[in-house]
Amino acid sequence: MTIPHSRIAELPAHAGTTVRVRGWVTHLRSSGKVAFIVLRDGSGLLQAVLVKNAVAPETWERFSQLTQETSVEITGEARPDARAPGGFELGVSELTIYGPSPLDYPIQPKEHGVDFLLDNRHFWLRSPRQRAIARIRHEAEQAIRDFFYERDFTLVDTPILTAAIGERSGLFSTEYFDEGTAYLAQTGQLYGEAAAAAFGKIYCFGPTFRAEKSKTRRHLTEFWMVEPEVAFNDSDANMRLQEEFVSYIVARCLERRRPELAELERDVSKLESVKPPFPRVDYTDAVKILQGKGSTVQWGDDLGAEDEALLVEGYDRPIFVFNYPKEAKAFYMKENPADPRTVLCDDCLAPEGYGEIIGGSQREDDHDKLLQRIHEEKLPVDAYGWYLDLRKYGTFVHAGFGLGLERTVGWICGTPHIRETIAFPRMMNRLRP
Amino acid sequence: MTIPHSRIAELPAHAGTTVRVRGWVTHLRSSGKVAFIVLRDGSGLLQAVLVKNAVAPETWERFSQLTQETSVEITGEARPDARAPGGFELGVSELTIYGPSPLDYPIQPKEHGVDFLLDNRHFWLRSPRQRAIARIRHEAEQAIRDFFYERDFTLVDTPILTAAIGERSGLFSTEYFDEGTAYLAQTGQLYGEAAAAAFGKIYCFGPTFRAEKSKTRRHLTEFWMVEPEVAFNDSDANMRLQEEFVSYIVARCLERRRPELAELERDVSKLESVKPPFPRVDYTDAVKILQGKGSTVQWGDDLGAEDEALLVEGYDRPIFVFNYPKEAKAFYMKENPADPRTVLCDDCLAPEGYGEIIGGSQREDDHDKLLQRIHEEKLPVDAYGWYLDLRKYGTFVHAGFGLGLERTVGWICGTPHIRETIAFPRMMNRLRP
Repeated sequence: MTIPHSRIAELPAHAGTTVRVRGWVTHLRSSGKVAFIVLRDGSGLLQAVLVKNAVAPETWERFSQLTQETSVEITGEARPDARAPGGFELGVSELTIYGPSPLDYPIQPKEHGVDFLLDNRHFWLRSPRQRAIARIRHEAEQAIRDFFYERDFTLVDTPILTAAIGERSGLFSTEYFDEGTAYLAQTGQLYGEAAAAAFGKIYCFGPTFRAEKSKTRRHLTEFWMVEPEVAFNDSDANMRLQEEFVSYIVARCLERRRPELAELERDVSKLESVKPPFPRVDYTDAVKILQGKGSTVQWGDDLGAEDEALLVEGYDRPIFVFNYPKEAKAFYMKENPADPRTVLCDDCLAPEGYGEIIGGSQREDDHDKLLQRIHEEKLPVDAYGWYLDLRKYGTFVHAGFGLGLERTVGWICGTPHIRETIAFPRMMNRLRP
Repeated sequence: MTIPHSRIAELPAHAGTTVRVRGWVTHLRSSGKVAFIVLRDGSGLLQAVLVKNAVAPETWERFSQLTQETSVEITGEARPDARAPGGFELGVSELTIYGPSPLDYPIQPKEHGVDFLLDNRHFWLRSPRQRAIARIRHEAEQAIRDFFYERDFTLVDTPILTAAIGERSGLFSTEYFDEGTAYLAQTGQLYGEAAAAAFGKIYCFGPTFRAEKSKTRRHLTEFWMVEPEVAFNDSDANMRLQEEFVSYIVARCLERRRPELAELERDVSKLESVKPPFPRVDYTDAVKILQGKGSTVQWGDDLGAEDEALLVEGYDRPIFVFNYPKEAKAFYMKENPADPRTVLCDDCLAPEGYGEIIGGSQREDDHDKLLQRIHEEKLPVDAYGWYLDLRKYGTFVHAGFGLGLERTVGWICGTPHIRETIAFPRMMNRLRP
C-alpha cells in the first residue's frame, strides 16, 4: 500500500497512521541518540523525532546533512502529542533529502535590518510572522468578496490603463500604441460610477498606483483598494455601509484567524469593540477639537496623520470625520447644500493611531457644477466626456468609498508599517524582488 | 409611515404593499388612458402601470416628459403578476423625475456597430445582455475565490510593477523613480513560486498586461488571470487540479446564473458535460492527429487557434494537450526526463472552438538547468537572482497554471469575442472610455 502524503495541517485525519510529509527544515537539534527536526510546509509546523536505534544507519547519517531550509520528505507515524504545536509529532522511519540548502542561507536566527529582509523578501515570507500576516490579509480579502457577493453587488474589474484620471498628481505613465499616453489608475471610482448606473450596486477591488515620493509607514506605490459604488445612496447611507463593512471584515478575522493574531501577539480585545455605529465628527468640530488639543490645524486644511491620531484618541472603534472643505478634497465630491464651502464626504479613521483607512463621498450629480469643478481643477475636459455623460442622461444620487487594504490589514495585525502587509511591497526605492 | 424603498429584485418581500422604486426608464408605451413604464435599476426590470383616472393630473402629465434613460422614483403597489418579467407589476400612485435624459441618448433601439458601442461602453453596459455577462463574470470570479479559499490556498497579490519578467516580449514599461524602468507584469507566477515555498499552496488573481499588436477575438492588452502554484505538485497533479477547478467554475455558473445564461441564449447542455477527467492528448500525438485532419503543423511548432479548434472537435469537454517542445514554451518549464526535447507542461483547450483557457507546467527545479535556460533566452540573469535562489536553497518539485478569466467567461457565456467579457476592454486601439 502506498503511504499517503499529508500536509501538516491535515495530520489529525491521519492520527496513529504512517504518512509522508514534505517541507523545509526550520530547526535541528540532536542529543546524539535522539534527533529533532522542526519541519515547515506552509500549512503549519511539525516536530519529527528520529531515534538512532530505531532507524537504518543511513537514515540516521542523513540527519547530519540537514541544514536550515533543506527540503525533505519524512515518513513516520503521526502521534498525537498535546505539547506539540499542531498537536502531533512524527515518529520518523525514513528521511529523504530533496534539495540541500547551503550554509549561507541569508536569513539566520538573529536580528536582521528591514532593508536586508526586504532584499530577501522571497525568503522572509517563510517566517511564522509573515505567514500569519499573509493569512490575515487573505481572510480580509475573502471577507470583502463575501460581503459584497452576499449583498448582491456586482463585481466590476475597472481598468488599470486609463486615459481619464480621478486624482491629479503622482501618476505612472506608459506609451500606449497610437493612442498616446496611458496612466496607471489611482482609482476605479469613475468607472465604478458608470457601472453603478448599469448594475445598481457594484464594487471594484484591485491594485492601484501612486507615483508619490512618500516615505511614510502608510504609503506604498502599489496597493490594493476596494471601492463600492451604490446608486441612490447618499452620504449618510454611505457611512452606514462603511461601518457595516469594516465591522464585518474585523469580525471575520477574529472568528477565523485567532491563531494568526496570537502569532502576532495582537491584543484582540482592541478589535472586539469594532461594531456599528461608528462615532461621527463634523469636520468643523474636528478642527475645534484638534485646536483644543494643541494642533495648529486651520479650517480649510486637510487633516494630517498626526491630527488623525489625535482625533481618534479615546475611541474604541473607528470614527468618521465628515464634510470636509471643498478645497481639501477631490473635484467629484458633491457640494454640501447646507454649506457650499464643504462637500458631502467622509474619512474613516482607525483607532490606535492607525489613521485613515477609508475615504468616501456622495458624488456630484449636477452636470454643470461638475463641469465647473473640472475647469477649476484644470483637468482635461475631453477625457471626462463619458463621465459627464452620466450626469447628462438620467443623473442620479450616488455614493461610494475606497478602503485601502494594506492599511486595514496593518491595523488588524497591529503592524506599524504597511510594508509587511503585502507579499512584495513597492516603495519609491524598492522595485525588487 | 415612510414608504420603503425597494430594489426590483427584492419586490417579492413587499408583495401587496406600497413601495418606492428608483431607476431608469427603458421603454414607454401609452394608450392615452393607460401608460406603461419599463424601469431598470440594475437588479432587474419592472413594468409600472399608470392609469389616467387613478392618479393626479400632474402625475399623468409627468409621464409625457419621460424619455429613455430618464431617472425616476415611482411609488406604487407591488402586485404579483405571473406575466411580468420579475413576477411583479407596479400600480403607480406617484412619479418623481430625478434626472431628465435628452432625446439624443446615444444608444437607441436599433442596431449599432461594435465600435460605436465600445465608444459608448458606459451606456452599453446598461443592456440586459451586458448585465448578464457581467453577472456571470462575477459568479466565475467568486467561484475562483471560493475554490481556493475552501482548499486552504493562501491568496498572494503579486506585484504589477516588476523588474523581473516571466515572459519576453510585449511589455508595457514606466519610469520608476531612481530604480530605472519598471515593467507591467505579464504573470505573477515567478512571485507565486516564491510564495509557494513559504505557504505551500497559493494563488494570485489580478490584472496582467500584454503590449501586443494582436487584433484577434481572443486578445486584450489588459486581462485578468488566476494563477495557482502548489509545492510538491507534479505535472500530473497539476492537470488534475485544473480539471477540478474548471469544472467547479462551470458548475457554479450553471447552478446560480441560469437566468443570465438564458438571457444570452446559451445552450447550457454544452456546459453540463464539463466534468473531470478531461481527455489528455500528448503533443506528439496531437501533431499527428492534426496532420491527419489536413493541418500543416510540424513537430516543434506551437499550436495556433485553428489547430486548437480542430483538435477539440468531437469532445464534449475541455481537453489537455501536454508536453510541448521546449522551444515552443517558456524558459521556466521543467525538462521532461523521458524526452528532453519536451517540457512537462499542458494547455487546456475549451470545446466549441474557444481554444486555450489555461497554460500550465511543472517548473524547472534544477538550478543549473534553469540558469542555462535563462542564458539561452538571453534574459537578464541579475533580475532573476531571487528566482534562482528558490532552486539554490531547498529546491522543490512544484507546478502551477494560469487561467485567463476573459477567455473562460467568453466560453461560458458563448460570446465569440472576449471584448464583451470585461467592463472596459483595452485593446491596441482602445484606451477609452
